[in-house]
Amino acid sequence: MAQPRIVIVGGGFGGLAAAKALRKAPAEVVLIDRTNHHLFQPLLYQVATSVLAPSQIGFPIRGILQKQRNTLVFLCELTRVDKEEKCLFVSDADRLHVPVTYDYLILATGATHSYFGHNEFEKFAPGLKSLADAVAARNKLLRGFELAEAEEDPRRHRDLLTFVLVGAGPTGVELAGALAELVRTALKANFRRIDPTSARIILLDRGPRVLATFPEHLSQAAKKRLEKLGVEVRLGQSVDQIDEHGVVVAGERILSKTVIWTAGVAPSPAGKWLNVETDRAGRVRVQRDLSVPGHPEIFVIGDTASLDQDGKPLPGVAQVAIQQGHYAADVIRRQISGSRPPKPFRYFDKGNLAVVGKGFAVLQTGKLRISGLSAWLIWAFVHLEFLATPGLRLSVFLQWAWTFLTGQRGSRIIVDFHASEPFRTAADTAVRGVA
Amino acid sequence: MAQPRIVIVGGGFGGLAAAKALRKAPAEVVLIDRTNHHLFQPLLYQVATSVLAPSQIGFPIRGILQKQRNTLVFLCELTRVDKEEKCLFVSDADRLHVPVTYDYLILATGATHSYFGHNEFEKFAPGLKSLADAVAARNKLLRGFELAEAEEDPRRHRDLLTFVLVGAGPTGVELAGALAELVRTALKANFRRIDPTSARIILLDRGPRVLATFPEHLSQAAKKRLEKLGVEVRLGQSVDQIDEHGVVVAGERILSKTVIWTAGVAPSPAGKWLNVETDRAGRVRVQRDLSVPGHPEIFVIGDTASLDQDGKPLPGVAQVAIQQGHYAADVIRRQISGSRPPKPFRYFDKGNLAVVGKGFAVLQTGKLRISGLSAWLIWAFVHLEFLATPGLRLSVFLQWAWTFLTGQRGSRIIVDFHASEPFRTAADTAVRGVA
Repeated sequence: MAQPRIVIVGGGFGGLAAAKALRKAPAEVVLIDRTNHHLFQPLLYQVATSVLAPSQIGFPIRGILQKQRNTLVFLCELTRVDKEEKCLFVSDADRLHVPVTYDYLILATGATHSYFGHNEFEKFAPGLKSLADAVAARNKLLRGFELAEAEEDPRRHRDLLTFVLVGAGPTGVELAGALAELVRTALKANFRRIDPTSARIILLDRGPRVLATFPEHLSQAAKKRLEKLGVEVRLGQSVDQIDEHGVVVAGERILSKTVIWTAGVAPSPAGKWLNVETDRAGRVRVQRDLSVPGHPEIFVIGDTASLDQDGKPLPGVAQVAIQQGHYAADVIRRQISGSRPPKPFRYFDKGNLAVVGKGFAVLQTGKLRISGLSAWLIWAFVHLEFLATPGLRLSVFLQWAWTFLTGQRGSRIIVDFHASEPFRTAADTAVRGVA
Repeated sequence: MAQPRIVIVGGGFGGLAAAKALRKAPAEVVLIDRTNHHLFQPLLYQVATSVLAPSQIGFPIRGILQKQRNTLVFLCELTRVDKEEKCLFVSDADRLHVPVTYDYLILATGATHSYFGHNEFEKFAPGLKSLADAVAARNKLLRGFELAEAEEDPRRHRDLLTFVLVGAGPTGVELAGALAELVRTALKANFRRIDPTSARIILLDRGPRVLATFPEHLSQAAKKRLEKLGVEVRLGQSVDQIDEHGVVVAGERILSKTVIWTAGVAPSPAGKWLNVETDRAGRVRVQRDLSVPGHPEIFVIGDTASLDQDGKPLPGVAQVAIQQGHYAADVIRRQISGSRPPKPFRYFDKGNLAVVGKGFAVLQTGKLRISGLSAWLIWAFVHLEFLATPGLRLSVFLQWAWTFLTGQRGSRIIVDFHASEPFRTAADTAVRGVA
């Protein structure tokens, strides 16, 4: 009899953990993803701020799994699931809706950023979820300084040098800290007409504090540190409007050419694909074994799954996804071997880390709550540890050491992928306008 | 009396050399470029083949010149020159046709790739001149293997695994060699359905030999090496057609999903901007002091200038641009200080280098002509030497050492900047089709 086929959709933390845990399973494992790389999302903000190159936090999934002979990796996108026929459909650049049958299915399709119903904001305030997003944000941030330097009228420098980050969760806080470091180190001596350190960096959140998932006093410490770095932290203020002129927050208009969206997340439409019940955020309600009601062969894990523990919903963090990936793999292995199911899934919270500029982080783990350099060293160690390969660990470590010692940034380039290739002349600019 | 203003257009090898040579000049130096970085073009093919990250061959121009207090750097694009008023006009993302007056002007605006009047080829056979080009080529090359792996029908693997490079100059030869190494090292063990080493790599040229600017027997050595690496070298055959199915060469249809254009170059429209005489290739005819007839204050250098030496036109290589940049700067310094002009410009040919895969290069310098590992070591040393900063030298050296020792590639990611951000469902694919 043929081996069962286990299809995993998504090569993020959850999907990759599941695939690795099925290394020795007597099954054909198929992992599909929309991209060819596993993305280390926690460091996306370092790509946006020119510290790391995209390839230092993205590594080919098939490279990570190359020794795993029972596993196939495909670059394609899920478009539909037929639960009854146990078949899903995928598309790639070549073909549409190719059927892929499965015996077991793990959906680890993650989340993207959400504009809370204000998708018109996206045009003016790009988010930060993919490598393309991070490069676009990097272009936008660096271009702000370039435009200000080219502007002779000092009165116009203000808007050009005002940077607004919407959302003070880990991404917003870490991005704000890294941006504040960028202006006072790598950029400092590079300009003649403007002083990069005069840039205004505003971090907005409608909630009462930064890093809301952290203990109160760590939020305070992070806020204090941000303010020490010159970041303007404005809390309890929600954004009414974002357009080409900037943002309107709590009725006040802030002129800014550079707004980055670091707020809400929206789960992938796994609920729609499976046509099953979701929570209000749109995440699939899974049972204690992470399977979907009525379908013991379908599992949903990570940011796109909804499960309560001790009365609280599990957070959308990498640790949850990784532990759920291991668990789902374990359940499947047991079903295949006919042994009895494991105890219900239980998330073990290893803690929370966020970095605020150079040499400062906040850490909460178990009863321990610390902030400062020690937390930052732990942060650096943990993040290196979780990178996909030894090669990436070495290259990111060297890059960090270099940046720490010299203050320089390794990837301070603006690469415009929509640039007009032919050289421009007055005539065609007049017609085309400037991109 | 105010200091004279020297405007340099272009931050490539020529423009940057001129700017550096004017470090101590009693003048205001203004360098403008369409990008924020100096690009080390000779290594673009290594970005296209996943060896280097874009930021390892691109470095911010204002970073390179930050210690040069008399120099301003602007990210903008030249649109028009008014020779009589000594004024040029630039555009950026914010403003159109901003006037910039000059006392001296150096145009070092380089060249782009040319399709010899067949611009319809570009859509199917992207070129390799900018970082965006290199990333697009990298996406295209890596995607070819992904699509083949996803294709169940082995008969269709052939077209998907046929890679055609049009043009056997240095770029084509070096790209072919690096691609041949890529399939037999980093990609080798990564696939299940396809054998990457079975990929067909075809290098086409209408000329009689590869590396036409090199001595005959070095061209032979390079060709032999390419064939040893499994590259199909087809010479004396010109391309009649390029479309979505592949290429038609010498009447024969070659099915290929991945065609890269590594042939001709076209100079920037400096002749049009200045409204002066050009050669047949469209390059500005300059006098022996690199100035434009009738305008001793305007200089044109590098790939966009046309100058004969000993009856032969100077080649479009970095060395010519660099030496011309130094020379033009010298002429201007002498004009400012009122001392007599220097001897007419004379290009000193330091020689020619091209690499063919791992550990093999061809070198011609003076009477010396060698090929093999020794030439490759010289190639590596020279290229590291010419990188813009110590940081880049270190990072590229470490990357090369890593790749040399492990066979791995550091940047094997597909980053699609035109990807549809929202998750795709059967419905909208059906409507939108696949990007």
